[in-house]
Amino acid sequence: HTPLRKKTQFKKTITVFVACSALVRLLPSFFLHPSPARLSSPSQAADLTIERNTKCKPKPDPSTLLFGKQFSDHMLTINWSEKGGWESPQIKPFQNLSLHPASSALHYSVELFEGMKAYRGVDNHIRLFRPMLNMERMHRSAGRSSLPLFDKGELLECIKKLVEIDQEWVPYSQDASLYIRPTYIGTEPSLGVSRPGKAMIFVIISPVGPYFSTGSFNPVSLLADPAFVRAWKGGVGAYKMGGNYGPTIAVQNEAVKRGCQQVLWLYGQDEEITEVGTMNLFIYWTNEKGEKELVTPPLDGIILPGVTRQSLLDLGRSWGEFKVTERTMSMKELLGALDAGRVLEVFGAGTACVVCPVGSLLYKGKTYQIPTMQNGPDLAKRFYKELTDIQVRASPHLYPKSKY
Amino acid sequence: HTPLRKKTQFKKTITVFVACSALVRLLPSFFLHPSPARLSSPSQAADLTIERNTKCKPKPDPSTLLFGKQFSDHMLTINWSEKGGWESPQIKPFQNLSLHPASSALHYSVELFEGMKAYRGVDNHIRLFRPMLNMERMHRSAGRSSLPLFDKGELLECIKKLVEIDQEWVPYSQDASLYIRPTYIGTEPSLGVSRPGKAMIFVIISPVGPYFSTGSFNPVSLLADPAFVRAWKGGVGAYKMGGNYGPTIAVQNEAVKRGCQQVLWLYGQDEEITEVGTMNLFIYWTNEKGEKELVTPPLDGIILPGVTRQSLLDLGRSWGEFKVTERTMSMKELLGALDAGRVLEVFGAGTACVVCPVGSLLYKGKTYQIPTMQNGPDLAKRFYKELTDIQVRASPHLYPKSKY
Repeated sequence: HTPLRKKTQFKKTITVFVACSALVRLLPSFFLHPSPARLSSPSQAADLTIERNTKCKPKPDPSTLLFGKQFSDHMLTINWSEKGGWESPQIKPFQNLSLHPASSALHYSVELFEGMKAYRGVDNHIRLFRPMLNMERMHRSAGRSSLPLFDKGELLECIKKLVEIDQEWVPYSQDASLYIRPTYIGTEPSLGVSRPGKAMIFVIISPVGPYFSTGSFNPVSLLADPAFVRAWKGGVGAYKMGGNYGPTIAVQNEAVKRGCQQVLWLYGQDEEITEVGTMNLFIYWTNEKGEKELVTPPLDGIILPGVTRQSLLDLGRSWGEFKVTERTMSMKELLGALDAGRVLEVFGAGTACVVCPVGSLLYKGKTYQIPTMQNGPDLAKRFYKELTDIQVRASPHLYPKSKY
Repeated sequence: HTPLRKKTQFKKTITVFVACSALVRLLPSFFLHPSPARLSSPSQAADLTIERNTKCKPKPDPSTLLFGKQFSDHMLTINWSEKGGWESPQIKPFQNLSLHPASSALHYSVELFEGMKAYRGVDNHIRLFRPMLNMERMHRSAGRSSLPLFDKGELLECIKKLVEIDQEWVPYSQDASLYIRPTYIGTEPSLGVSRPGKAMIFVIISPVGPYFSTGSFNPVSLLADPAFVRAWKGGVGAYKMGGNYGPTIAVQNEAVKRGCQQVLWLYGQDEEITEVGTMNLFIYWTNEKGEKELVTPPLDGIILPGVTRQSLLDLGRSWGEFKVTERTMSMKELLGALDAGRVLEVFGAGTACVVCPVGSLLYKGKTYQIPTMQNGPDLAKRFYKELTDIQVRASPHLYPKSKY
């Protein structure tokens, strides 16, 4: 295989996933039919200007990559103002942002982000995984953040162009990928707490290895302490807004102090289990009726609607081999099932880590072992392999030509 | 009176309030005795470097000022890194910040701020109001944000130097003041959600008029909708972190859509009344025992510990004329008291607005009138006058010379 680098081949090179045919049936229509460029919309990809970096950096060895530490040669910026609307998108050399010190992103966290990846397949084609799900979520986060809405299809076109230009930054490796970080900030240069009159979307990209330095299939230990609450009903936990993340750092550090690697976030009087670290949470168990069941908390306002979460639900349902349920589960219920030997696997799921097995739980001073690894983990591994097949190996039967 | 502009007279010109003698008894010792420069500490005021702005802007007419729209000629920045510790503080011309696009403040809201004011007294001296309370709160916010701690006394010295240099920006007016905005951001240039290895404190200052364009003593109308929750137990509502503010903008806009000016934030199943907009909330009523009582919600983790809030509690308690109580109050209790004619005044309190009367409440589709204005508002006006006397008029009896 030789890399396809010519610009005219871009559309063949960067492929937007429609995933496997079993998934396709379950996806909303925007996902099957990416919006064509709408000429009447702001921020048109057709107006994109490109300033090439003349001092490109050497690409790192894929085996040495850490998460989000190195960035490519270019970035995308799109500015908006109340007076002038959306300016033309710009791809330019990766550089510092020049921000007014009163910018509302720096004071009031008028900011949101997305996380998505581009993969270099074994066929050397570069693919994005379900990117319109990220654009949709980003659009919802923008509405909740009082930031101006944007054309999702146009933004995706601009991101694809950025990946095309920096395509040599997509690691030639099946264990690494290119992390794409769309970010959207309020740049209003005044101190009233109000809807910003200026804003900026920017996208930076970073070749990444595995998120957890212990590697994907080493199980993590969790601290479950009801004193720490990630999100709450009536708040913004369902949106990918910056303010949901900063406050978790001190809690994560507390978990490490207590000998754990991640936080299991509990909620409410029943101590519902909600998320783990920055991932969605899955429990595969034998339920009280004796049925095999995959459970994850429902999107009831305090759960981030993860793209990996949705993909695991879609895959699990398409297999039809076990029950797949979105419902709340309390600590009491989980511990009872653990005690009864009904818990098979517990794992986190997210774009950065894909699938992450959980090995133990520290709760009210007592450590509970979770038999995830003893059980394979068969299901977590199957999900990991299936997603990797879709993302990297791109087996022809998963991508019938008629779907492109 | 002529302004005292010579640098050697700085200590006479910028006076740190110890407020009235009645207050002094109630204040913690750090407030009475500002820390001297500690040579062993990071970020030493003695190391401060000053680059003068050669293109100073004309000062605005105090009667035209809006909140936080104009900034002075200089700013203060102090950089920190894990490797090098605190660098020397810099005062330099007001300018844009150059930030790495992966800075943790822009992605994960690793950011916090303070709000305080400098007042030009009728004696032409410039005074800060209880600034160590802001430094203390900023220090607590830094800890919760996983940002490195700093020397509170040293930072205050640097801020006083900034105000000294831009002292002509302190409005020659009793209705206007100089708003001081210390800000602290994570500048870690990588995407892992973790304790930042780089950070920056910066301080910008802005001459301000009244926060509400309707003026301080026009009553505001509030939307009370339990669907919107500002902060929750186990979260960070008690800290002045950016993520507490951005999400309120959409709710504030919803309040305006429904014909109200501000949001009354409710909490929990009992619909406790917590804060109003970005202010603390006070209720002056005749309680069920027939006693006159000033009530404000307690610092139980979801309430921001406001400096104005503390000052009103201190003043009220020093007068000894009515009960002063920090306790929760539910909507049901407030509406019952309104119905029984026992509510005298409801008002918000904060640095930006000082005291802000509440005139009505929209709750579950029904508007409730609150007789704040019909009752003077005697107490709100008395607080306002007392604070203004302290801040601007600086009556000699309030500042016995022996206290300096």
